[in-house]
Amino acid sequence: MDSVIVKMIDNVKLRNSTLIVGLPGIGNVGKITADYLIDKMKAKKFADVFSYHLPPQVLINNDARAKLVRNELYYKKRKEGDILIFTGDFQGLTSQGQYEISYRILEMSRDLNVKEVITLGGYQIGKLVEIPRVLGSYTNEELKEKVEKLGVIFSKSEPGGGIVGGAGLFLGMGYELFNLPGICLMGETSGYFSDPKSAKQVTKVLLEYLKIKIDTKELDEKVKEIEEITNKIVENQPEERREDLGYFG
Amino acid sequence: MDSVIVKMIDNVKLRNSTLIVGLPGIGNVGKITADYLIDKMKAKKFADVFSYHLPPQVLINNDARAKLVRNELYYKKRKEGDILIFTGDFQGLTSQGQYEISYRILEMSRDLNVKEVITLGGYQIGKLVEIPRVLGSYTNEELKEKVEKLGVIFSKSEPGGGIVGGAGLFLGMGYELFNLPGICLMGETSGYFSDPKSAKQVTKVLLEYLKIKIDTKELDEKVKEIEEITNKIVENQPEERREDLGYFG
Amino acid sequence: MDSVIVKMIDNVKLRNSTLIVGLPGIGNVGKITADYLIDKMKAKKFADVFSYHLPPQVLINNDARAKLVRNELYYKKRKEGDILIFTGDFQGLTSQGQYEISYRILEMSRDLNVKEVITLGGYQIGKLVEIPRVLGSYTNEELKEKVEKLGVIFSKSEPGGGIVGGAGLFLGMGYELFNLPGICLMGETSGYFSDPKSAKQVTKVLLEYLKIKIDTKELDEKVKEIEEITNKIVENQPEERREDLGYFG
Amino acid sequence: MDSVIVKMIDNVKLRNSTLIVGLPGIGNVGKITADYLIDKMKAKKFADVFSYHLPPQVLINNDARAKLVRNELYYKKRKEGDILIFTGDFQGLTSQGQYEISYRILEMSRDLNVKEVITLGGYQIGKLVEIPRVLGSYTNEELKEKVEKLGVIFSKSEPGGGIVGGAGLFLGMGYELFNLPGICLMGETSGYFSDPKSAKQVTKVLLEYLKIKIDTKELDEKVKEIEEITNKIVENQPEERREDLGYFG
Repeated sequence: MDSVIVKMIDNVKLRNSTLIVGLPGIGNVGKITADYLIDKMKAKKFADVFSYHLPPQVLINNDARAKLVRNELYYKKRKEGDILIFTGDFQGLTSQGQYEISYRILEMSRDLNVKEVITLGGYQIGKLVEIPRVLGSYTNEELKEKVEKLGVIFSKSEPGGGIVGGAGLFLGMGYELFNLPGICLMGETSGYFSDPKSAKQVTKVLLEYLKIKIDTKELDEKVKEIEEITNKIVENQPEERREDLGYFG
Repeated sequence: MDSVIVKMIDNVKLRNSTLIVGLPGIGNVGKITADYLIDKMKAKKFADVFSYHLPPQVLINNDARAKLVRNELYYKKRKEGDILIFTGDFQGLTSQGQYEISYRILEMSRDLNVKEVITLGGYQIGKLVEIPRVLGSYTNEELKEKVEKLGVIFSKSEPGGGIVGGAGLFLGMGYELFNLPGICLMGETSGYFSDPKSAKQVTKVLLEYLKIKIDTKELDEKVKEIEEITNKIVENQPEERREDLGYFG
Repeated sequence: MDSVIVKMIDNVKLRNSTLIVGLPGIGNVGKITADYLIDKMKAKKFADVFSYHLPPQVLINNDARAKLVRNELYYKKRKEGDILIFTGDFQGLTSQGQYEISYRILEMSRDLNVKEVITLGGYQIGKLVEIPRVLGSYTNEELKEKVEKLGVIFSKSEPGGGIVGGAGLFLGMGYELFNLPGICLMGETSGYFSDPKSAKQVTKVLLEYLKIKIDTKELDEKVKEIEEITNKIVENQPEERREDLGYFG
Repeated sequence: MDSVIVKMIDNVKLRNSTLIVGLPGIGNVGKITADYLIDKMKAKKFADVFSYHLPPQVLINNDARAKLVRNELYYKKRKEGDILIFTGDFQGLTSQGQYEISYRILEMSRDLNVKEVITLGGYQIGKLVEIPRVLGSYTNEELKEKVEKLGVIFSKSEPGGGIVGGAGLFLGMGYELFNLPGICLMGETSGYFSDPKSAKQVTKVLLEYLKIKIDTKELDEKVKEIEEITNKIVENQPEERREDLGYFG
């Protein structure tokens, strides 16, 4: 079998399009953001992506129906430029898997007239913060300047090191091997749990950059749910340890 | 060498056939069931499957004869629809191995006019039960309804998560990549040892669904053997721990 | 690069030949035996085998010269039937590596008119014995009977389980995929160190079977060296533990 | 995607050239030396090498710009013979990765008229020394004699074992599969941190061998920085442990 199998549901033609990559990862920030966008924009799935680089299993939904683990491609046509969203259940299990899946989707993106790539992720800071900042990395000056105006921080010291996984590879391979300019938007997150608060900040920047007019209200509901859980955890900590959790709420 | 090598023993033509997948796994439920069916139906082996995704070794039988580890395909012709059974010594060692072996057999199944796939496995509950239930997952409503009438439980909450390995992949890939409807039958099992009691329940459902008229007496003998062993284990536990073992016998 | 690269040193034509496989493994029994045979028969190397399934390194000899890790093929022409010996620095690092290297050499063997394969190894018993027995496994009745007459034990219970690595794969794949009859000769060994005493017993059987007239004196010297070391270890054990080491000398 | 992707920046033609390999590794000696040479000789990059055998990530520089992890090829034309330098962010993650990247670069080297290969590395001795020696290994007597005159030590006992990674593979595969004579220069290093002092000794030998006239002053500055750090560590050790650190300064 091919290492990556794309099963087309719909043969779409896009123009002047932006590829958005939001996969599971740190604080699940990328995936929450991508899912929200798909849901609220009513983006339409046009391809399932299967691969032996994903875990060998099916997931079972509430109705006991089995679904082979997958990545997915969605699109939304707009006069300001079409939107292409890549998300999924898992990232590739190995280095080779990560590269091969990203490469295959970038090949498709070329045929779908993608002009830029925006990857989404979490930036782990190991503590809770009231309003997570959105940190950025880039491969193109012009894009950087545009999102810098929207409050994204391109810091010398942060994020040090690197960006691992799809959020890094789509950015780096897109630029080096497919001539695609790109930015990565990373929401600060404790990294300890699924973090809709961080995703909300990333979503706001993304919506503004793409000139999409949808609200982030439903993310607030998810934030509330998570906060109730984390507040309980904080309350159950002895007084002196609360500060260590870095929670200023 | 090819990653999966099918060595044909007999060139069979099947029609209107059902693929049954019973590989080693949790409680060995799938394999016990497949072996029993092969034995009692006098199904005939028509292909050996070798792969570098299986462990690099031979097994040695009682006579000191060496046998390369393998998977196997059996068939049984019937006027109600032919039966194809896939079983083996091991499952693929890696994710890629799991996918490649399943994919190769599904390719063959297409040529053998397989119309549906039934995968067998154990569902680990971590305790002993008197009469294990048979839980199901599905990719096709019609099949689901048929086996639901036979007592299979398609629960919202169970089995949560997913089905890992061949029992999951044949179901998921069969549906997504080969257009094959399917169900997975999972016998509840402690998961601590080879579990013929769980296999017996799965076998009963399978026989009824396929309208095969063989008894399950010999499975009862295996159940007795295992129960003698597990009873001893329970007796050797201090009184207060027996309940934890969840044994209601 | 190809996964296995055979670098021919000499283009040999063999007839009526026997393939002997002696690779590093338990007690190093297979490799010691192969090396001894090569040395005493003055077998000639005709091919180096390199592979990315071997460790990524060079070995450095006493003279500081670097040698890429490799497997090697030797031959000896004889009127009783030619001899082909496969040995090397390492076995493949992964399951796929083990299979691919064995398969490639078996392909070559077919072109070199190999009529049978004899694999050599150690059988770990976890204790020292005065005279290690030679245990056998087989894929062909006739070969089994021949070596049984030479004292090789084909036991129902031993070796239980299986034979892992090249000693198993050349036997199993040779038989299933290349139609080559074969036997595996395993010298009992503690498995705790390189074991020339076990190798000597295997060598004796092999020489007799192949009607090769060389002595095993030099192996005795190696045995003495190792025994001096192990005797010291035994002497340094408290009295009551000596028996546990299973040393009857 | 191909396992190794070479992105040419400049189509160079070299003649009578020497391939120098300095990758990250023990004490980072190889990489420090290669980087210094590139910097001081003003060598020009002519190819980026990407691979799914490298980690799946981008690195982020001080300016927040993302760079896909890579290996790199530099060249410098000279009338004494051209210089080709291979360096990079990481070595291949797996055995197969190490082999495939080395093999691909050696293929390119053949087309670039490489006549010899010099690999650079650290030789871990587990303690600090005042003046690290440069140890050598070789595949060609003539080259060995040349560098032996420059003080490189080709010892019977050191380096025992082997040379792992690119420093070993370029040497071993270069010789066996590309007919390229070669030497490996290893600077003694504690191996506990990045070691410019060791790299300086290797650099000196290399410059002399290649008849390159650049100084090693800037390496001295790096040595000073590291020494300040390690001196502090030594001072913070209790008196009796200082000797264990093997520091004779």
